Amino acid sequence: MLRSIIKTKNIVQKSSIINQLFKYKNNSIGTIKDNSNNNNNYFKRNFTSYDELGRNFLKNYRNVKDEFSSSKLYEKINDENKELLKKIDSKNSLYLSKLITTVESSREDHQEQSRMIISYLSSLAKEKGTQYNSFRIGISGPPGAGKSTFIEAFGKYLTSLGHRVAVLAIDPSSVRSGGSILGDKTRMTELAVDENAYVRPSATRGSLGGITKGTSDTIILCESAGYDIVIVETVGVGQSEVSIDDMVDCFVLLVPPANGDELQGLKKGIVESADIVVVNKADGELLPKARFTVSEYTSAFKLQRPKNQHWISKVVSCSSISKEHIDKVWNTMCEFKKVMMNCGDLKTKRSLQKETFMKKLLEEELLTLLHHNEDVQKVLPYFEQQVKDGILSPTLASNEIIKTFLISEKNKPIK
Amino acid sequence: MLRSIIKTKNIVQKSSIINQLFKYKNNSIGTIKDNSNNNNNYFKRNFTSYDELGRNFLKNYRNVKDEFSSSKLYEKINDENKELLKKIDSKNSLYLSKLITTVESSREDHQEQSRMIISYLSSLAKEKGTQYNSFRIGISGPPGAGKSTFIEAFGKYLTSLGHRVAVLAIDPSSVRSGGSILGDKTRMTELAVDENAYVRPSATRGSLGGITKGTSDTIILCESAGYDIVIVETVGVGQSEVSIDDMVDCFVLLVPPANGDELQGLKKGIVESADIVVVNKADGELLPKARFTVSEYTSAFKLQRPKNQHWISKVVSCSSISKEHIDKVWNTMCEFKKVMMNCGDLKTKRSLQKETFMKKLLEEELLTLLHHNEDVQKVLPYFEQQVKDGILSPTLASNEIIKTFLISEKNKPIK
Repeated sequence: MLRSIIKTKNIVQKSSIINQLFKYKNNSIGTIKDNSNNNNNYFKRNFTSYDELGRNFLKNYRNVKDEFSSSKLYEKINDENKELLKKIDSKNSLYLSKLITTVESSREDHQEQSRMIISYLSSLAKEKGTQYNSFRIGISGPPGAGKSTFIEAFGKYLTSLGHRVAVLAIDPSSVRSGGSILGDKTRMTELAVDENAYVRPSATRGSLGGITKGTSDTIILCESAGYDIVIVETVGVGQSEVSIDDMVDCFVLLVPPANGDELQGLKKGIVESADIVVVNKADGELLPKARFTVSEYTSAFKLQRPKNQHWISKVVSCSSISKEHIDKVWNTMCEFKKVMMNCGDLKTKRSLQKETFMKKLLEEELLTLLHHNEDVQKVLPYFEQQVKDGILSPTLASNEIIKTFLISEKNKPIK
Repeated sequence: MLRSIIKTKNIVQKSSIINQLFKYKNNSIGTIKDNSNNNNNYFKRNFTSYDELGRNFLKNYRNVKDEFSSSKLYEKINDENKELLKKIDSKNSLYLSKLITTVESSREDHQEQSRMIISYLSSLAKEKGTQYNSFRIGISGPPGAGKSTFIEAFGKYLTSLGHRVAVLAIDPSSVRSGGSILGDKTRMTELAVDENAYVRPSATRGSLGGITKGTSDTIILCESAGYDIVIVETVGVGQSEVSIDDMVDCFVLLVPPANGDELQGLKKGIVESADIVVVNKADGELLPKARFTVSEYTSAFKLQRPKNQHWISKVVSCSSISKEHIDKVWNTMCEFKKVMMNCGDLKTKRSLQKETFMKKLLEEELLTLLHHNEDVQKVLPYFEQQVKDGILSPTLASNEIIKTFLISEKNKPIK
């Protein structure tokens, strides 16, 4: 009986080896023992022979680590984009805009390039240790909360403090209405001409995933361009708001002053995901109503399970017109970031966001491939009709369509 | 220039031809004209040559119609299952139970067989014209509504009228608690021993899709076994209830008598999807409260957009203990079915249900393949780590994982 000891601290290699060994457990002539870990039972697996193990291991193992080093990634970026990357942090936002356009494009070659660009910039920020210098703030709220007015006042305040601010407006309705994105930029007239601010509507690539995909990458680009505060704005109250929290460090819910009845209609999920609630329009006649709203939200947060372990969501009020308490809003946000940085939650949050996003993207892109496959498109109408007519079962039909998809992909060249 | 006229009324062939022609539109030496349809412009496409068209057409076109005729499907059913199918409508429910077990099994060969069995039974029912003889009733409601007691009383009433009743209990919580499914059967003691009734907990295959998948197929089996009324029961109020409406002809919401405050907590979506609301426990001291509940729901239905074009959701009350008005509940259901049959909505509903189900299944099964792929499992931990560490972008990682999946599937033999 052959005996082999594999000592490795590399998790990928280890899991690869273990995967290999799983295959041989039924036809064993040997045993592997892993000494790098006390939990030996988990790593003890059987295999047919050392040679066969090695051969299979090498055949199936893609050395992904070498393939995706940051220098290899940079090599794959074309010259035009390399030029843009060199100038990305210049005062002229034209270069940034061009790169964002590439990232938002649905052309396959643009997509390929943007994957390299974003990965390159991410590892660059990590190397420099600058990735947590930026502050990503998500702002959402119901129509009528005065989001544009608030962001204009808030953005101007931040640039006056010496910050550089990027505002990305995501508007899920823009696909249909077409107009409201433009409206946003025209409403933020002062901020749009501020040389330390960059206002950009984020392209909605049709689906929810599309929105998120473009926006996440655009955030990286803005940060690389030297904007240390990135504000992501979404419109309306609905399903899509919850996912904004998957992209930002701090999720702010902006609300107008409201009476008791209006507060009833509050979407629980949205409030639960808010780190800070800002009651806007706290001026003039609305001041008492705003105070009432602040106290209502504050007591609501006391009653519910806190979203963060080290931060109980705060409620502040301000006026975007008189500019009163805009500084208080900013200080609350800074306090939040400080707390989250010190306890390590911000790092964890960003890690998890990226992981979650990757998993979502993975599923979404595979389904896009399925639905865009020409052979699937060819057989789908037939199977649909047979299923609707009650001749084939949905189970059989879906299975056959998947077979068609896989056979079709089999016949395509490997890219 | 070559000119060819393709005359066909077969939609699949037509769409295949059109798909072929799309490929040649840029390098055209010919034009195709479709005379079977006035919308000629849509069918006019260019192709390189008639020969090439034909060759490509035959190469890519899977003759799915021949492949899935009901006789071909029957051939693929193994002898053991053929025996069970012959005896499925006998008084002994053992054969039915065995077939349900096959359908619910996650073993690949059982899955393969069940696809054939269900398709065969579906086309058989269609040939005989019996597919609308059955009545599929979904019953849901909050805990404490008395679902088991109601179904026991209701089921006994139906068998007394000469019907044969199958009760399928779906309990999403059973995976965790383990006990409640068994509880259901023991609670319906009288119905469980009725020779014209069949009570069966529907296996939850872990995911929501699993539940639905098994249940839809089990409904077909029960109908083929001669149960003309199939009751699908779900427990609790939550997301999963809404999907029960995707499996049944008539969705019944069972509620206990409630006062104004309790009605406030009513989930809007559930009520909106109910065809009939049954206020249970309308007896003794609860009678006035039950009357109040009936009027509250009735006025709620008047205010909202009706779910069905030809049926305004009705509210009835009954007592499962005194058995009072159980007949009224049944008559309301029959009235509903009659209205829905006469206007054709029932046929449309079932068609759409199957189509929706197939599309859901298609996506779900492909994602299962992805996540179960051994090469994906091998590279996933590496990519996840790199993404979490901020070295690779989620977009790049997800793209590479999909490539790994497709390359891996390419190397597998075609089944």
